[in-house]
Amino acid sequence: MEYPSKLIEEAVNEVSKLPGIGKKTALRLVLHLIKETEHQTFALTEALNKLRKNIRYCNTCFNISDNEECAICTSHRRDKSIVCVVEESKDVMAIENTAQYTGVYHVLGGVISPIQGVGPGDLQIESLVLRVSKSTEIKEIILALNPTMEGDTTSFYLNRKLQGLPVKVTSIARGVPVGGDLEYADEITLGRSITARTLFH
Amino acid sequence: MEYPSKLIEEAVNEVSKLPGIGKKTALRLVLHLIKETEHQTFALTEALNKLRKNIRYCNTCFNISDNEECAICTSHRRDKSIVCVVEESKDVMAIENTAQYTGVYHVLGGVISPIQGVGPGDLQIESLVLRVSKSTEIKEIILALNPTMEGDTTSFYLNRKLQGLPVKVTSIARGVPVGGDLEYADEITLGRSITARTLFH
Repeated sequence: MEYPSKLIEEAVNEVSKLPGIGKKTALRLVLHLIKETEHQTFALTEALNKLRKNIRYCNTCFNISDNEECAICTSHRRDKSIVCVVEESKDVMAIENTAQYTGVYHVLGGVISPIQGVGPGDLQIESLVLRVSKSTEIKEIILALNPTMEGDTTSFYLNRKLQGLPVKVTSIARGVPVGGDLEYADEITLGRSITARTLFH
Repeated sequence: MEYPSKLIEEAVNEVSKLPGIGKKTALRLVLHLIKETEHQTFALTEALNKLRKNIRYCNTCFNISDNEECAICTSHRRDKSIVCVVEESKDVMAIENTAQYTGVYHVLGGVISPIQGVGPGDLQIESLVLRVSKSTEIKEIILALNPTMEGDTTSFYLNRKLQGLPVKVTSIARGVPVGGDLEYADEITLGRSITARTLFH
């Protein structure tokens, strides 16, 4: 597409680098910003710049945080004996939204993926092992990684790394989603839900 | 949703003010920016700030432009005797993409909309009348506004304003879209396509 102005073209190019935003959506957003007040654009860019400059991570669990320790790690109401291991901060938010978990977290910052050049050294794995071996409180590690090949590989690697330490290592349940239809579940999920069946009473 | 950091929350709030972007998409975009290099965020915010500060409009047609006059108005290959009146710059881009039009444009900057408090004085209507009455070149005005109630009202208003001036005022054709199915066309469109039928030979 031909743009009427170099400024528009540059802005569209930058905005369309965001995930899930193509050139057309980017143009729509950029034209919206032009129509609105200058203040709105400056508030947006200021918030993004401030975020990128000042973003910090919790020293204990490596979740995004405003302080040295995050609100979950410093809370007296959280059960410090259970650590839930997740890939990203957004997984923490997803689990927090369920209001079913009262333990603490450990954010790996990704999963082992040889294709994308991510090895165990790039993730917060050593810090997890150190945290578990130093602590006398931690009794259980829940692995809550995404059910992808990379997630499973990472779970397997973590399980081996945590062997020998006096903690129970568990994994979140895999099975048919609530509200899902058996008929439409894939064979692997349905198969796992049968082998990992739970007792009614 | 609870955000792990005030910075994230502020950024999500600003990003979700953009049209078609909700809190969830905003969070996804913001978390993406955190994972990428600082440079990418700064390039994005810089491009948007520069755009908002330096954006200019063509003195003749009020399309977005880098200079006093836009590339279309200054081109010697464009037919200056036909002026196509559109609502927004994006409509110019849409018509340019068809490669069917060789005339010039006039961008109103919106349509008359009493509900949104937009009157004729807020649009580039006076400048169009002045442009037409001053010029000896202009022979035809094509009204290419969106087929909405506001668009039709504005077309009607423009038509009255241009009466008495020595130009032909036309409107883009309304009818069944190419590739569309007669069965699924609404009654008004189908009705118009019959009354405004065109001659084969």
